[in-house]
Amino acid sequence: MSSTMGSHYKFTIFGQSHSPAIGVTIEGIPAGTVIEMDKLQAFLERRAPGRNALSTQRREADVPEFLSGLVGDTACGAPVTAIIRNTSARPSDYDEIRDMPRPGHADYTAHIKYGGHEDVSGGGHFSGRLTAPLCIAGGIALQLLEEKGITVSARAVEIGGRPDHFEETIAAARDAGDSVGGIVECVIKGVPAGIGGPMFDGLEGVIAKAVFGIPAVKGVEFGAGFEAARKKGSENNDGFRFDESGKVVTEKNDAGGILGGISSGMDIVFRAAFKPTPSIALPQHTISWSRRENAEIRVKGRHDPCIVLRAVPVVEAAAAAALIDLML
Amino acid sequence: MSSTMGSHYKFTIFGQSHSPAIGVTIEGIPAGTVIEMDKLQAFLERRAPGRNALSTQRREADVPEFLSGLVGDTACGAPVTAIIRNTSARPSDYDEIRDMPRPGHADYTAHIKYGGHEDVSGGGHFSGRLTAPLCIAGGIALQLLEEKGITVSARAVEIGGRPDHFEETIAAARDAGDSVGGIVECVIKGVPAGIGGPMFDGLEGVIAKAVFGIPAVKGVEFGAGFEAARKKGSENNDGFRFDESGKVVTEKNDAGGILGGISSGMDIVFRAAFKPTPSIALPQHTISWSRRENAEIRVKGRHDPCIVLRAVPVVEAAAAAALIDLML
Amino acid sequence: MSSTMGSHYKFTIFGQSHSPAIGVTIEGIPAGTVIEMDKLQAFLERRAPGRNALSTQRREADVPEFLSGLVGDTACGAPVTAIIRNTSARPSDYDEIRDMPRPGHADYTAHIKYGGHEDVSGGGHFSGRLTAPLCIAGGIALQLLEEKGITVSARAVEIGGRPDHFEETIAAARDAGDSVGGIVECVIKGVPAGIGGPMFDGLEGVIAKAVFGIPAVKGVEFGAGFEAARKKGSENNDGFRFDESGKVVTEKNDAGGILGGISSGMDIVFRAAFKPTPSIALPQHTISWSRRENAEIRVKGRHDPCIVLRAVPVVEAAAAAALIDLML
Amino acid sequence: MSSTMGSHYKFTIFGQSHSPAIGVTIEGIPAGTVIEMDKLQAFLERRAPGRNALSTQRREADVPEFLSGLVGDTACGAPVTAIIRNTSARPSDYDEIRDMPRPGHADYTAHIKYGGHEDVSGGGHFSGRLTAPLCIAGGIALQLLEEKGITVSARAVEIGGRPDHFEETIAAARDAGDSVGGIVECVIKGVPAGIGGPMFDGLEGVIAKAVFGIPAVKGVEFGAGFEAARKKGSENNDGFRFDESGKVVTEKNDAGGILGGISSGMDIVFRAAFKPTPSIALPQHTISWSRRENAEIRVKGRHDPCIVLRAVPVVEAAAAAALIDLML
Repeated sequence: MSSTMGSHYKFTIFGQSHSPAIGVTIEGIPAGTVIEMDKLQAFLERRAPGRNALSTQRREADVPEFLSGLVGDTACGAPVTAIIRNTSARPSDYDEIRDMPRPGHADYTAHIKYGGHEDVSGGGHFSGRLTAPLCIAGGIALQLLEEKGITVSARAVEIGGRPDHFEETIAAARDAGDSVGGIVECVIKGVPAGIGGPMFDGLEGVIAKAVFGIPAVKGVEFGAGFEAARKKGSENNDGFRFDESGKVVTEKNDAGGILGGISSGMDIVFRAAFKPTPSIALPQHTISWSRRENAEIRVKGRHDPCIVLRAVPVVEAAAAAALIDLML
Repeated sequence: MSSTMGSHYKFTIFGQSHSPAIGVTIEGIPAGTVIEMDKLQAFLERRAPGRNALSTQRREADVPEFLSGLVGDTACGAPVTAIIRNTSARPSDYDEIRDMPRPGHADYTAHIKYGGHEDVSGGGHFSGRLTAPLCIAGGIALQLLEEKGITVSARAVEIGGRPDHFEETIAAARDAGDSVGGIVECVIKGVPAGIGGPMFDGLEGVIAKAVFGIPAVKGVEFGAGFEAARKKGSENNDGFRFDESGKVVTEKNDAGGILGGISSGMDIVFRAAFKPTPSIALPQHTISWSRRENAEIRVKGRHDPCIVLRAVPVVEAAAAAALIDLML
Repeated sequence: MSSTMGSHYKFTIFGQSHSPAIGVTIEGIPAGTVIEMDKLQAFLERRAPGRNALSTQRREADVPEFLSGLVGDTACGAPVTAIIRNTSARPSDYDEIRDMPRPGHADYTAHIKYGGHEDVSGGGHFSGRLTAPLCIAGGIALQLLEEKGITVSARAVEIGGRPDHFEETIAAARDAGDSVGGIVECVIKGVPAGIGGPMFDGLEGVIAKAVFGIPAVKGVEFGAGFEAARKKGSENNDGFRFDESGKVVTEKNDAGGILGGISSGMDIVFRAAFKPTPSIALPQHTISWSRRENAEIRVKGRHDPCIVLRAVPVVEAAAAAALIDLML
Repeated sequence: MSSTMGSHYKFTIFGQSHSPAIGVTIEGIPAGTVIEMDKLQAFLERRAPGRNALSTQRREADVPEFLSGLVGDTACGAPVTAIIRNTSARPSDYDEIRDMPRPGHADYTAHIKYGGHEDVSGGGHFSGRLTAPLCIAGGIALQLLEEKGITVSARAVEIGGRPDHFEETIAAARDAGDSVGGIVECVIKGVPAGIGGPMFDGLEGVIAKAVFGIPAVKGVEFGAGFEAARKKGSENNDGFRFDESGKVVTEKNDAGGILGGISSGMDIVFRAAFKPTPSIALPQHTISWSRRENAEIRVKGRHDPCIVLRAVPVVEAAAAAALIDLML
């Protein structure tokens, strides 16, 4: 099912942009796990909107309420459900979207798939807002990994094609009524060798599937990634050696810490490409269902000219959830 | 489980490079499906080794024997198992690999994961030879898709960093005792709008997971992919319009036929990056388990200096298997 | 995972007896399905406690709040989460249970499984109260089946070993501080021939797995069930014939509507055996963890002397959920 | 999928009564497991036909060939596929069955489900012969359990309604051209407390689903089973006490070793009801598809008048496979 991920650490994300609540139901948190609520809240706030002058003005608290699965803050072994109430009022200005699908959004494809029954408001279940419950599941996964000495750290390495001056680039896009995308790199440290497996549950595939679950991701690469395709074998292969402590390491890490789908003990490194925010103020070509003719749309409201910075913790969340699933 | 893929069209690949046989067990082929055996065989031969002067000299027939699931050539609704006997003799020259893991291969990581019980010979279950049963499952998937008017066509678009003169590039690598990788692009035509879904079973994630199941793939991108991250929203969004027949199309296809994880009805386009073949004749750094010291290895035998051309049908197979799983 | 059922109509039940809420997250309700809320509520009330003089006095509203997946009362294709708030105060009188596991309950086994982190209050996730969210999932499944012309009707056919005078039997048990069990028979009408399959997803196995998910069920049998084992083949086989309308029917239905795991088009008939309520007022042998010695316990509070009558809709819910999963 | 079972110890059974081979593909055997082939063969022979004067005369070797997953007799971590060749010639006398479905068999229901494409010969994938690969998977599971100190022992406790003189009862049925069923009881010793879970992966449901996967099983009950429904709570509850070694035990075991779906550490006890063999020599009512009229059939050939004795190891196999799946 689309909104479920994992088999040992398994969760289902529910909610729409303007449903009464959004949330997540998680199975597999080991009984006895103490969830550090402050740390989880701090993690969620890295993703929350309205954090700076550049991002969308919609302001939400994003404080999860845990409905089940805990005794105090300790997991009791039963499924954990946490919800975030949607406090923003349901807007009435989505009639236009219902008639005219926004380019780059799921409006058109959801309309076909769900036969017109999709929740149009705010993008419904396709809204970036649904990355909040992903961050609840992923934030708990990060805590479980941390107990095993594993850290997951992502950062934007490129926005609008530039490796720096991100705020400037974003501001320029906003002023032009346009948007920019970018690339997030994620480094996972402390994973022991031997996690993953050949073929379809290889680490690359498992992590990629989770990361492609984040709206706007259009590419995922590991280690040298697409550049590996341009190297010679003698350049790309990472030689092995014993380090001073007698541990087997590789001399460099073009493999991104993964060989044959299995962790090598080196850092796991991957990059995700985010397309630019599809909501832009500039006029775009679309169709009108009601008039059965080509039309023009300007997406109203204030939208993030760049979601990449807010996506950074979401990438960590997705990667953490994918990884802990293989380690429980 | 690592070697299983799919939920409606589900299959498990089994076998090692030198086990008595390799093969695949498939559930979900609709009863009444006639498997065109000649077409399947022709597909398998596109992947087979020894097809030209450049690829590995090991010559195998790769003719599948169907053990179950058919009455004549027609699926009866029961699981289909097809095997290919491994005719090459089990070689004795893998003792070196057991002691010295080959850089870029799964020797080291499998050793850790399986505690020394892994099948070392020829790479065991990690061998590229296991793409043959993937091509059986994928070849049948291609026939099922074809009945729905869907075609899957891949081609190498870059080898060793060059968009052309592939044979020359490969020959040069071989003569240098080295290897090259490359990029395969795959185009899927005829997929109706509405296939896939949001989040974790989005088309990008599902196809990527299958494609990362092919050994040596280190990156997967859809549509404009990593380039999308460098575009403006106004450049990257694909405007909608009614075409002359009244069908909704997009004016271009930077989305690679996927919006919100769901097919838009446009061509699905993706690219996979293959690292260079890790087996090279040049000396490489590794370790010796027996001597507990750093060592040097030259991988013996004749190996493909480039597996990209042979991987082309494998990419089609993986994509077809992933797609039919969402359509049955 | 324990609390998840299904693959096409998939749901996870969450909550504990005294957690903030109990509920269910459901994937697979087809977009466009209108949930008849009045009918669902009426179904839930058949299960609710405090309905008559005989059942437990704890009074709860059991009105589900739908947090997601609907637009109005219509499914939009996204996961549906519904919750019921636990209004009863968390009691402090479970300290005894934490020390002395109640015979017949999961207190002891949960303690071992969850290492002492289980939620003891009211039985936690093992409480019969969790059959309320099962009835939400099952109640919606019943509506989906009804659209296909399928009805599911259960009734108690035996309580305390008697086929009638149930109230009398239950009252006698209550007056004696004891409890009784019983047998629920369920008849599913309107299932077309051809649903189910051989081996592990045969209708018997799939329905049984769901029904054994109801607390206190210790046996499930189909058609003639255990009596079939005492018949001759010539007695047990159901002969086929064309009925007046030209439809193939069987002359009787000892198979309970299932042959080879697949529906025959006849009524599906099964029976579930419920053990007597384990909570009784009479003294019972147990152990004290704190004192590490054998002990005696009298389970306090008012408890149902017989849960079989309340379990009748729960059996319908479980069967409906299992069946619709095979039909979507 | 119907022919797949398990998630940690996962296997798919393939083959039809007269396909080139039958077999099983197993994932999840821990690398390093040594399969004791003699013991496995001895286990398979307990199920094999032609073992005594009473069972069917068809004689098959049932020696599995392992195609993959092993190095010598040691599991290497890759999927294990084992096959048994079908040596009996494909018979031509199934034309009658194709026209006239045998009462009590899956002929009719499979015909509807698979649209006439089902493999009719010998019952195809529905044949009892497919319990041979189940016994391969189960036989290996038994070895894995034995390493953990767990034994699984089944026996027939009733045949044709009698608790003894089984051979006499079966011979009488055979002489009358009829058949008998029976009840198999299975006792699993050595399971530690804490295995299983609440709701849908409770031990009862998981074991029942596996056992209902055996053809002809129509009922499964645990511990006191259906008799529990006739007891008082004070009779049915098993009191706890510390035994002399300080271990928590129950004073009796009406729960069959399972409380709340979780093992209590006591013996797991269940019974399965087998209907009588549907193939009988006596005339039966059926229909003729070709003539579209009611008809009479006498099932030709020599058939087992009772499959219960041969089913005993199959019950052990199914239970072992279900249990190890929860313990890996």
